[in-house]
Amino acid sequence: MGAINASIGFDRKLWRQDIRGSLAHAAMLRHVGILSDAEEKAIREGLAAIGARIETGDFEFSDALEDIHMNVEARLTEAIGEAGKRLHTARSRNDQVATDIRLWVRDAIDGLDAQLADCMRALADRAAEHAGTVMPGFTHLQPAQPTTLGHHLLAYVEMLSRDRGRLADCRRRLNESPLGAAALCGTGFPIDRHMTAAALGFDGPTRNSLDSVASRDFALEFLAACAICATHLSRFAEEVTIWTSPFFGFVRLSDAFTTGSSIMPQKRNPDAAELVRAKTGRINGDLIGLLTVMKGLALTYAKDMQEDKEGVFDAAENLALGLAATAGMVRDLRPDAERMKAAAGAGFSTATDLADWLVRELRLPFRDAHHVTGRLVAMAEAKGVDLAALSLDEMRTVEPRITEGVFGVLTVEASVASRTSYGGTAPDNVRRMAAEWQERLA
Amino acid sequence: MGAINASIGFDRKLWRQDIRGSLAHAAMLRHVGILSDAEEKAIREGLAAIGARIETGDFEFSDALEDIHMNVEARLTEAIGEAGKRLHTARSRNDQVATDIRLWVRDAIDGLDAQLADCMRALADRAAEHAGTVMPGFTHLQPAQPTTLGHHLLAYVEMLSRDRGRLADCRRRLNESPLGAAALCGTGFPIDRHMTAAALGFDGPTRNSLDSVASRDFALEFLAACAICATHLSRFAEEVTIWTSPFFGFVRLSDAFTTGSSIMPQKRNPDAAELVRAKTGRINGDLIGLLTVMKGLALTYAKDMQEDKEGVFDAAENLALGLAATAGMVRDLRPDAERMKAAAGAGFSTATDLADWLVRELRLPFRDAHHVTGRLVAMAEAKGVDLAALSLDEMRTVEPRITEGVFGVLTVEASVASRTSYGGTAPDNVRRMAAEWQERLA
Amino acid sequence: MGAINASIGFDRKLWRQDIRGSLAHAAMLRHVGILSDAEEKAIREGLAAIGARIETGDFEFSDALEDIHMNVEARLTEAIGEAGKRLHTARSRNDQVATDIRLWVRDAIDGLDAQLADCMRALADRAAEHAGTVMPGFTHLQPAQPTTLGHHLLAYVEMLSRDRGRLADCRRRLNESPLGAAALCGTGFPIDRHMTAAALGFDGPTRNSLDSVASRDFALEFLAACAICATHLSRFAEEVTIWTSPFFGFVRLSDAFTTGSSIMPQKRNPDAAELVRAKTGRINGDLIGLLTVMKGLALTYAKDMQEDKEGVFDAAENLALGLAATAGMVRDLRPDAERMKAAAGAGFSTATDLADWLVRELRLPFRDAHHVTGRLVAMAEAKGVDLAALSLDEMRTVEPRITEGVFGVLTVEASVASRTSYGGTAPDNVRRMAAEWQERLA
Amino acid sequence: MGAINASIGFDRKLWRQDIRGSLAHAAMLRHVGILSDAEEKAIREGLAAIGARIETGDFEFSDALEDIHMNVEARLTEAIGEAGKRLHTARSRNDQVATDIRLWVRDAIDGLDAQLADCMRALADRAAEHAGTVMPGFTHLQPAQPTTLGHHLLAYVEMLSRDRGRLADCRRRLNESPLGAAALCGTGFPIDRHMTAAALGFDGPTRNSLDSVASRDFALEFLAACAICATHLSRFAEEVTIWTSPFFGFVRLSDAFTTGSSIMPQKRNPDAAELVRAKTGRINGDLIGLLTVMKGLALTYAKDMQEDKEGVFDAAENLALGLAATAGMVRDLRPDAERMKAAAGAGFSTATDLADWLVRELRLPFRDAHHVTGRLVAMAEAKGVDLAALSLDEMRTVEPRITEGVFGVLTVEASVASRTSYGGTAPDNVRRMAAEWQERLA
Repeated sequence: MGAINASIGFDRKLWRQDIRGSLAHAAMLRHVGILSDAEEKAIREGLAAIGARIETGDFEFSDALEDIHMNVEARLTEAIGEAGKRLHTARSRNDQVATDIRLWVRDAIDGLDAQLADCMRALADRAAEHAGTVMPGFTHLQPAQPTTLGHHLLAYVEMLSRDRGRLADCRRRLNESPLGAAALCGTGFPIDRHMTAAALGFDGPTRNSLDSVASRDFALEFLAACAICATHLSRFAEEVTIWTSPFFGFVRLSDAFTTGSSIMPQKRNPDAAELVRAKTGRINGDLIGLLTVMKGLALTYAKDMQEDKEGVFDAAENLALGLAATAGMVRDLRPDAERMKAAAGAGFSTATDLADWLVRELRLPFRDAHHVTGRLVAMAEAKGVDLAALSLDEMRTVEPRITEGVFGVLTVEASVASRTSYGGTAPDNVRRMAAEWQERLA
Repeated sequence: MGAINASIGFDRKLWRQDIRGSLAHAAMLRHVGILSDAEEKAIREGLAAIGARIETGDFEFSDALEDIHMNVEARLTEAIGEAGKRLHTARSRNDQVATDIRLWVRDAIDGLDAQLADCMRALADRAAEHAGTVMPGFTHLQPAQPTTLGHHLLAYVEMLSRDRGRLADCRRRLNESPLGAAALCGTGFPIDRHMTAAALGFDGPTRNSLDSVASRDFALEFLAACAICATHLSRFAEEVTIWTSPFFGFVRLSDAFTTGSSIMPQKRNPDAAELVRAKTGRINGDLIGLLTVMKGLALTYAKDMQEDKEGVFDAAENLALGLAATAGMVRDLRPDAERMKAAAGAGFSTATDLADWLVRELRLPFRDAHHVTGRLVAMAEAKGVDLAALSLDEMRTVEPRITEGVFGVLTVEASVASRTSYGGTAPDNVRRMAAEWQERLA
Repeated sequence: MGAINASIGFDRKLWRQDIRGSLAHAAMLRHVGILSDAEEKAIREGLAAIGARIETGDFEFSDALEDIHMNVEARLTEAIGEAGKRLHTARSRNDQVATDIRLWVRDAIDGLDAQLADCMRALADRAAEHAGTVMPGFTHLQPAQPTTLGHHLLAYVEMLSRDRGRLADCRRRLNESPLGAAALCGTGFPIDRHMTAAALGFDGPTRNSLDSVASRDFALEFLAACAICATHLSRFAEEVTIWTSPFFGFVRLSDAFTTGSSIMPQKRNPDAAELVRAKTGRINGDLIGLLTVMKGLALTYAKDMQEDKEGVFDAAENLALGLAATAGMVRDLRPDAERMKAAAGAGFSTATDLADWLVRELRLPFRDAHHVTGRLVAMAEAKGVDLAALSLDEMRTVEPRITEGVFGVLTVEASVASRTSYGGTAPDNVRRMAAEWQERLA
Repeated sequence: MGAINASIGFDRKLWRQDIRGSLAHAAMLRHVGILSDAEEKAIREGLAAIGARIETGDFEFSDALEDIHMNVEARLTEAIGEAGKRLHTARSRNDQVATDIRLWVRDAIDGLDAQLADCMRALADRAAEHAGTVMPGFTHLQPAQPTTLGHHLLAYVEMLSRDRGRLADCRRRLNESPLGAAALCGTGFPIDRHMTAAALGFDGPTRNSLDSVASRDFALEFLAACAICATHLSRFAEEVTIWTSPFFGFVRLSDAFTTGSSIMPQKRNPDAAELVRAKTGRINGDLIGLLTVMKGLALTYAKDMQEDKEGVFDAAENLALGLAATAGMVRDLRPDAERMKAAAGAGFSTATDLADWLVRELRLPFRDAHHVTGRLVAMAEAKGVDLAALSLDEMRTVEPRITEGVFGVLTVEASVASRTSYGGTAPDNVRRMAAEWQERLA
């Protein structure tokens, strides 16, 4: 029973939040007259001393005291006596732990937000640098149209920006103080919940005491936001493993993000990328874990909810690792521009540009332009050359109205330059967008 | 291959969104001079005719044409000729399907939002009605302190309110138009993406074409919001199954939400509640399904993403069922107030009120008050009576300073009335809060 | 990179398996002449010394050496020199870690199997004791027919028995030695993989070297078996929380498995049961975590697979906790036989017995018998009495052929005694089945 | 309520199983004297007629009759009168549906088993054909050592073989008949459960009636086996998408498994592979869905369990699609042997062969051999040549004892040929193993 019941092994991570919450509670109790000035001072100093000892590793956590709350309170009473026994007035472990975990998640969000911004900065910087670096744009992992590395990197900026948005929304929604909900029904003491809420940086107190101690949807929302972000990172990581494979050879990572073998110097295992890709597994697991725990739980608090913490900690920590590794890889990667450009030009990659030219200049219906293009590609393929290597006369055997102008759209440079629609791949677009992001993230 | 590849079996649900998107696209093409007025008119009327036929079930979907987009376009071209072949200018199935699915999710959110509001109204109405109906407040499914049914129901209003918030955030974040991202790189046609965005009710166009066709985080976020909401519903459903069990007997549901047996009239199986509780399974599954699909997908579009639709449809439809059933049960349930009140008073449920009285009136430290209360409870238990049945003299053998006033806090009515802290269980609180919600939801 | 890359923080749990594997490998290398007798002896003694130090906590693990394999090998070479450098001949970390983790899972299965047997013994013992203790049999958490506590407990014996079967099948399937697959392609050294397989208790070597280092389906199967078992435990745990709720009051648990409050002695929070119920969350999460990791991984080894360990460890440890707590609760629980019997008789619970009697004795068609029973129940309900309290004359107004014999099936004792079909609830059945299990598990 | 409650929309898939179960039940009822010969004959013929009508699509399912069981029984009674009303004697919908779904899963397993065998045959045939086709063996998607395509394909044979084993174990474990458990407690009718079990191909009846109607672990086990198998298929599918990417270009798929574009003939989108890869998502979702449903369900039957079917159907059908597509792709793929061989030789891929030679021939300790190899590789790299292009003299500047013999291990052919350890990559090994599988699967 002890083994399954004690949570001090993991909930000690909440120590800062627990002490912060107790300080706010004590100050409020003094304000409303439940604690004397002296009592509150004793508590304040006692908690500060305990915090200092935990900080320096000089605090012995006791399994017998089960959790962080009792560990702190028992030590406090040991140190300051009577006043310590008054601290728990008008609160309960139920609202206390709900407060602690909300504070912890809020702190975690703040940390992840900073990391996301850093990662986006890294991406935007590299995007600015490579706004014109041509590479194949892929669908189905097959080259489809030429794009630029900068445009590709900015796609991730957009994804991470939405991830920040999700975390920010989660933060805003969770930022209400459950402190004062007490065991489950509130209390008859004349407490001031708005005061503790303000002291702890909450926007205000929660509105229903049962909900306050029974709900963990903020943790679920946090885990979901982490899982979605990890999914984004896994996509970039997959691309890194493929792009660093010698048969692609698009980018190279330094030893800081690869492991290798002295006897196979070309073999540069993208371990960091693989681990980032894999992290999405455990974070999905953390999410489904807590969803499973919360399913069908009758109100209000149940011991099941003790299982909320480890998954939240694990997701936050592993997402932080993943973001750090990703930002590092983004800054580290050295593109092979020549190779990417050559790759971008292979396989009649400007065929859609030709079709679009036929629509635009000859006003062929789209589906007919497609048909003409198909015939021209077949001709080039039969001759073993690129589209640009067909002569105008040859082209005119298929469509007599084709003019010299067509050659202006058949190179990869022309292709990327032409895609000037809003959000399109044209280097000028990309440069402007990268600059906007750099400014916004500065 | 046909069997695994065709999506028309499920993506036909997107027909409204597909036609809406095509209308906006055609109007824009006319505006920028790519389509003539006559062409656009033909397209508009052709699509209207197709829409009317689908509406009435008079449209034969073809598996050979694979998906909703080709089914509609092929029929259109059949009907109006040349102009139909021009419709696909400057777009691609990739941005088209991304647009359709965003529109579908947005519509689904609007429907769910209305249902959530309805469900909250039902809860707030019953809460207003039962603001003073005393029942046991539970922790660990053990009675802990008296509360009221109204307070309990309002806890769910809070949860569903946050669910609405999550869906609203999701809606806001997804409300950008991918139309015009074309295959993946944007286009050289002089399209006006802001115009199509506005026509479709989007806040504006997306900023990166690769991201536009490659990302489905909006669907993941939607599924996560659905899963969290379903988890809330599962908790209420669990309570209904327990409360309608004859050994609790707190509430009774009519035949509209139970099934029974002519030979066991007392057996009222809470089928609706059980199904609501179970729905969280498939919605969690839909969420983990798409998270799995998106993990490690190299940009941009991959056929894997065709698997985004069925899970999204399934989650939306089953959450809608769950919300409808929940709202119905809330309106339907008939509480047994006598039984709940009796249950609320069992088991020294006002012991914490006594302890709080000792702190408040005698200024005992919280932990000492706890100790005194424990001794009084033991005394009552030994005598086989309730706390209120102890005489003042008996109480004073444990703590001589106890006064007559203590009896004012030992009834369940006094207990609930006393918990006046913000968000607490006091009937006046509950009444005020229910009224606030009723007003807000009116 | 260090933070995301190092695994020594968790894979040190493999130390026993790693040393066992190295001993077998060294013995084989000596046997085929790659190591001299002296070298193998030095290795054997060196590893034994390392093992002894780890056992006693006197071994410093180094993060710089990344994982358990390098920690052990580096220390060995430090201790015994040259020979240590030869140990890694004809193997690689890839087959080494695959061997270690298989051995660990096998050991975990053996431990869980013993715990499952213990838990089943506890259930069978209590079932034998309560073969005749009548209680309500539930569907939809509504009493449906009388059954016995013994029969109910034996239902769990059946579930856990299948859980054992799943783990045994998993053990049998994983029990092939990957050692000798080397990095991925096998080796040119004249190794004897059958010898190492036998030494490590494997049934033989794996048949394909690429599969050997690339596959983790054994871990997935293990996690799935754990998740299913945890689901079974969660169902029992749910029942414990409901049955110990005072409104059911079917069973009582001692302080060893509940927590309470000195001031609310009747409040016995079933913490252990709640934690068992919750554990299914993290184990489902561990399963989905590894399924996500392995999805779409190109062969052979990828660093992603480093994420296989923590989930496996976590699931094994938490299932072990859950089984121990469950066995403990089974042995601990004190049924309130009177209360359960009274509950079993409520609500015309023998109505199906009456209907069956009509079919059996009067040869009414089943659906007609149902109808007659419905009318008799309605009559009893109208009179506010039980079926057994109707007179024969009253019954005959509904169905004239009813005889005195009908009263023999209307008590709960008669009901349970009558259900003698194979696997049915009749106490004699239950007693025999409990005895069979006791014998089988002895 | 109707919308959430009715299951006929999906459980009609059980019609064959439902009729099969009823036939067995009726024959048994006749055998024990509960039905007359004439009654049983009427039932038998009535059910046959219903089956024939369903088969031909000439049966109208009614939502009002809720499920397949009532649809069939109601129609039967309509057709044959009295006898139809007797069919349900001594059974209940609870044991009936448990029987039906077990039979359905068993049938599904048999179908998947045949498909797995077919897929393995395809792999073994291609492995036999390509036992000597050299390709790079990968770790971390980086070439590590030369292997052969045959060896690689056989790795999947091993995986799928274990998948078959898992399904077979699941089949064996579920193959007990719940029929006769009746509602939950068994019955007092003198039924012969062994007889119905035998008639339905079960190994015998289940041993506990409560467990029989309450448990769905067989469905969970089935889903887990499907999810693991789908994971294996997703790995192969990922390799196909990478290998068909032009920068790898290892294999080519025909139009039967790719989609393309008339204007980009080189672009062959591996749609089938992508869909196979994606299917693992929904199957993981189905698994987690039912795990969630079953978590914490009090015994016995609860309506929640109605949610067991759709996930099981979905997983079975999508895995069947995935297996068919995979077998098809295996048979279809055309390897580019030249390109794969060239790829296998790049990047000092025989460096480990050199190191092994140093250990074997010169008895260098493994770690020292590694060091010498590293220096030789560095020398070759500096010269821009392969290892085999270094002269003996050059090599001897690093390690004077190297002999001419070393050149025998530096080609990719020598490398693969040398790896003759059991399960190793040597073509002779592969040929033998492929032949063994072909024989076993014949």
